[in-house]
Amino acid sequence: MSERAQEFKPNTARIQSDIEELAAIVDSSKPGWTRRPFTPWYEESRKWLTERMRIAGLDVRLDAASNLIGRLSGLEDGLPPIMVGSHTDTVTGGGRFDGIIGVVAGIEIARLLLESGRRLRHPLEIVDFTAEEPSEFGISTIGSRGMVGHLDETMLDRADPSGIVLRDAIERQGGRVSDMAGEARKKGEVALYLELHIEQGPVLEQSGAALGAVTGIVGILRYRLAIEGAPNHAGTTPMPLRHDALAGFCEIGLAFERHCKAHGERLVGTIGKMANEPNASNVVPGRVTFDLEIRSLETELSARVYEAFFEEAKRLAVARGLRLDSEKLSQSEPVLVDPEVLALVEQSCAAVAGTLCLPSGAGHDANQLAAIAPIGMIFVPSRGGRSHCPEEWTDYEQVAVGTEALFRSLLAYDRKAGSVASHGF
Amino acid sequence: MSERAQEFKPNTARIQSDIEELAAIVDSSKPGWTRRPFTPWYEESRKWLTERMRIAGLDVRLDAASNLIGRLSGLEDGLPPIMVGSHTDTVTGGGRFDGIIGVVAGIEIARLLLESGRRLRHPLEIVDFTAEEPSEFGISTIGSRGMVGHLDETMLDRADPSGIVLRDAIERQGGRVSDMAGEARKKGEVALYLELHIEQGPVLEQSGAALGAVTGIVGILRYRLAIEGAPNHAGTTPMPLRHDALAGFCEIGLAFERHCKAHGERLVGTIGKMANEPNASNVVPGRVTFDLEIRSLETELSARVYEAFFEEAKRLAVARGLRLDSEKLSQSEPVLVDPEVLALVEQSCAAVAGTLCLPSGAGHDANQLAAIAPIGMIFVPSRGGRSHCPEEWTDYEQVAVGTEALFRSLLAYDRKAGSVASHGF
Repeated sequence: MSERAQEFKPNTARIQSDIEELAAIVDSSKPGWTRRPFTPWYEESRKWLTERMRIAGLDVRLDAASNLIGRLSGLEDGLPPIMVGSHTDTVTGGGRFDGIIGVVAGIEIARLLLESGRRLRHPLEIVDFTAEEPSEFGISTIGSRGMVGHLDETMLDRADPSGIVLRDAIERQGGRVSDMAGEARKKGEVALYLELHIEQGPVLEQSGAALGAVTGIVGILRYRLAIEGAPNHAGTTPMPLRHDALAGFCEIGLAFERHCKAHGERLVGTIGKMANEPNASNVVPGRVTFDLEIRSLETELSARVYEAFFEEAKRLAVARGLRLDSEKLSQSEPVLVDPEVLALVEQSCAAVAGTLCLPSGAGHDANQLAAIAPIGMIFVPSRGGRSHCPEEWTDYEQVAVGTEALFRSLLAYDRKAGSVASHGF
Repeated sequence: MSERAQEFKPNTARIQSDIEELAAIVDSSKPGWTRRPFTPWYEESRKWLTERMRIAGLDVRLDAASNLIGRLSGLEDGLPPIMVGSHTDTVTGGGRFDGIIGVVAGIEIARLLLESGRRLRHPLEIVDFTAEEPSEFGISTIGSRGMVGHLDETMLDRADPSGIVLRDAIERQGGRVSDMAGEARKKGEVALYLELHIEQGPVLEQSGAALGAVTGIVGILRYRLAIEGAPNHAGTTPMPLRHDALAGFCEIGLAFERHCKAHGERLVGTIGKMANEPNASNVVPGRVTFDLEIRSLETELSARVYEAFFEEAKRLAVARGLRLDSEKLSQSEPVLVDPEVLALVEQSCAAVAGTLCLPSGAGHDANQLAAIAPIGMIFVPSRGGRSHCPEEWTDYEQVAVGTEALFRSLLAYDRKAGSVASHGF
């Protein structure tokens, strides 16, 4: 290995130690590894991160949205910074890797820069975004929303179940809510946003690739449907006289699966949540409500699949004497990675290990940053595709490989910046 | 109309008044008409019933299981009694007819006998059975079980959610639990048990028949099944890599419906209760549990249908990489009405109004009495097939028609007794 290559090599033991130390700062009354935002454990982890960032030579501060930012000045310090970020909050009963590896990778890169004496042209910002996971306030990616000016007054006024209002929670954590709008980053004020994350799916593991170059983050189309039948006595109602909402759901659910499966890897569709009423073993189900979602990089395709499905579902309902109602819950637009950024990330990854291009089916802080900057994301494999659970696992060596790919992407961008950063921003 | 026929004619206004007076003795804090057993409202209704029975010329007492019994002596008082019974407890949020009309019909028959001066050969017992509906103790038909010696020590030791033990509840209501076993009626000690009940289903209404001669009470076969898949991220798991327990449930549920529908009116099958886990809109369902039941007069057919279904369900599960487990919850045997009793009941019904022979898909106190006596049941129509809800309705005139059919059945039996009563008892 050349000396050139050696200086990109992250220290696996150091990464492991960071991840393990963070994994010790958790609410032990909860299952798995639980570090919810705005808790004492989160505050303690922030102190630990601040110390680690300082040792890595970064200037550390909290921004108005209470994101923890470690900054390294650039040779051309007037340039907009390259940003590397992720989050260290977890879901309840979560794991040790989701989000965390992205922040640790950023700190490791700062350490590698410090040790090599190499200076970037751009300033570098390593960010631990506040509260990326779905929070008790009913919103996710709170910190990254705040950074780009997307945390509106309605959101800030939301209260968690204990009555704490989001704006107060952010203030208590060191944010300055009244400064958020003024300090919000605008288009062009970040040169490039990069994030290393676990895949949270089985694709890399099953394909044997060590790295994923993310092509985009899917948009999500969500609907709530209700099937209305008649809740009759299970003993006294002959089969032909029933209007069984659950049997109707079975037929409609299979139709949905069939419509989603017809588009290969371009789309996934899920019925994850449903309720059967009255849900008694001796009553023919009278009502079933369910939520469905379609995720794709192609907004048009999602809409087309839903429409075709819903047409068929209506026919199926009518044939059983059932009523079918639907309500659109939400629609988020996909984020597409700029082709030049994707090429740069893919080449940087390929220089390190076997790489697959794939979309991200989950949302990330990158979704928010995409509003003001080109983004790039790198995935490392999740064992068994598991995440948001105690079994979540990625080998430390795989995290180091991802960190190296992230570092190389950043260096490649820093060298050729200007041509890429201007794209659409 | 001959004078003979006139004396069978129940007084509709009197029946209506009884039903309405009972409907006023309910827990008004609950929806619909709610009169749960072992409550102050139940106690008050018992006082009211006692008074009504006395006015009808009956000797009233509580038996050891706290069933309220009004007795009229027979010309041959050493004969086993003909028993007419049902219940006046309701489900929470129930209606005004279920059970109630059977007790009111019995009292009306006693009044008709009193007014006509006619004496039966057999003693007649009109019974208001304690707690027929599913109770807080987890058992139904408590009083009729107790009367035939089927309320065992385990059942008597059950506690309701407030900690009250069934044996104490029965004692407080005037029962004598320690005497129950000794007083239990044995085979041959009841000549014939007759019950008038609302159909609780839509068959009579849809067929246009005013009366149903019940051919038997279906047996119920209950299973609990569990489908085990993998609870993966709904965004990051491509469709072909999923083991979606809910999609599997949809396929298996439709297979169950198909197997049950293949046997016309001989059988009904229902999946009424199910649970989807983790039931989050962004997680592919990892586990679905559900209860199914098959009801039929034909025990063999129920077993065959379940086996054929389960074979197919296993194949469907395997094809999706799901695990399928099953557990038999319970199996109750059907009660078949003796052909001679059925002929007698059917002829008595047909003399009054259009009659259809049909099975009872719901259980009744008659299920318990069938252990010691031949039983016969008559149904009157339920509007829209509804029951166990505030909308439960049967016209008072229909109740009167049913009461007349019950009276005629009882008289016909009383005349020809001996030949029928000995059948199998």
